[in-house]
Amino acid sequence: MDFRTEFKPETVHPIRIEEISFRMIDEEIGEHPYTPEQYRVVQRVVHASADFELGKSLLFHKDAIWAGIQAIKSGKKIVADVQMVQSGVSKARIEKFGGEVKVYISDDDVMKEAKRLDTTRAIISMRKAIKEADGGIYAIGNAPTALLELIRLVKEGEAKPGLIIGLPVGFVSAAESKEELAKLDVPFITNIGRKGGSTVTVAALNAISLLAEQV
Amino acid sequence: MDFRTEFKPETVHPIRIEEISFRMIDEEIGEHPYTPEQYRVVQRVVHASADFELGKSLLFHKDAIWAGIQAIKSGKKIVADVQMVQSGVSKARIEKFGGEVKVYISDDDVMKEAKRLDTTRAIISMRKAIKEADGGIYAIGNAPTALLELIRLVKEGEAKPGLIIGLPVGFVSAAESKEELAKLDVPFITNIGRKGGSTVTVAALNAISLLAEQV
Repeated sequence: MDFRTEFKPETVHPIRIEEISFRMIDEEIGEHPYTPEQYRVVQRVVHASADFELGKSLLFHKDAIWAGIQAIKSGKKIVADVQMVQSGVSKARIEKFGGEVKVYISDDDVMKEAKRLDTTRAIISMRKAIKEADGGIYAIGNAPTALLELIRLVKEGEAKPGLIIGLPVGFVSAAESKEELAKLDVPFITNIGRKGGSTVTVAALNAISLLAEQV
Repeated sequence: MDFRTEFKPETVHPIRIEEISFRMIDEEIGEHPYTPEQYRVVQRVVHASADFELGKSLLFHKDAIWAGIQAIKSGKKIVADVQMVQSGVSKARIEKFGGEVKVYISDDDVMKEAKRLDTTRAIISMRKAIKEADGGIYAIGNAPTALLELIRLVKEGEAKPGLIIGLPVGFVSAAESKEELAKLDVPFITNIGRKGGSTVTVAALNAISLLAEQV
């Protein structure tokens, strides 16, 4: 059956469009090494990017899915590196469990401190985040400097994130920051290479909160 | 010179990271058919996606750049299809010229009307947008149904957008909606294929507003 021609999009509900998309992804993805739960994340990342190469570049720490579900279900804070990630996340499911999605990068105190120390707001926002949201999920889709700082704070024992979703995009330090993340023994979801970004970070996080709702 | 090793990201300003990224893109992009102004958009889309294939899939109506610049400079409204696009856009440059970035998809009246007509909120949001923001820039990064509706409204003479940036992503109707857009004789920026999304739509719009500031 050809899913592509079975309906007119303008008369079909978004939920049905998503279903059809997921069936197309299942058909096209081919072989992959993921568990069924990890695949739910991969599938949603492919859906958000239309990029199988990106989907299949995902790496999961062995505890990532379970740790993410636990963080959501216990109402831990979600920290986004940038507003785009915050605004894309499906908030109702997170708030249902008592959680909320925070972003610190435009806070006055963060901006002042970054200026004072002559560094990036992304870095300072992570230093603030670990004070307010430890044990939570860190969703980093844009700023490699935020991810590198978070990794440093983990290594120094100052941060204990429940899950790090580290999928920054870009030419400078993005791939390198994700390689560093993949060496940590904390729950993480990341990927290999330069690709990533806010939309796929949102997709991964939404996949986790959907799993949390179902288990 | 290898730009990759010349600095440590945590001690370098974001503006310098961007500069280095753009030089890497210039080196790697190879041959392309774009004018210097179109290339500014392509470069920023590649920067936001780390995806040269996506960057080189962009299509420009011959008047797109100029029309976009004019719309920004004359303070026309920008309409985003979803909140992620709205939250990612650099608003200061747009507001400087008197413009603002609107998104209608979560408005109460839009939600009610979509329910009443049993259709998508994206479609109804476009019907509202053309009443409030004609002559403006439509930045559609997520919903093919929004783009298809906007195309229909243009064809029927009900909408006269200044520029359509149509870069929805996905498996169902995204590529098809962009093919339809590319047939219109209105200023558009779009691309070939399934790829696209909020982050690249934001990148394209930010490139246009930067050009507007410079000419």
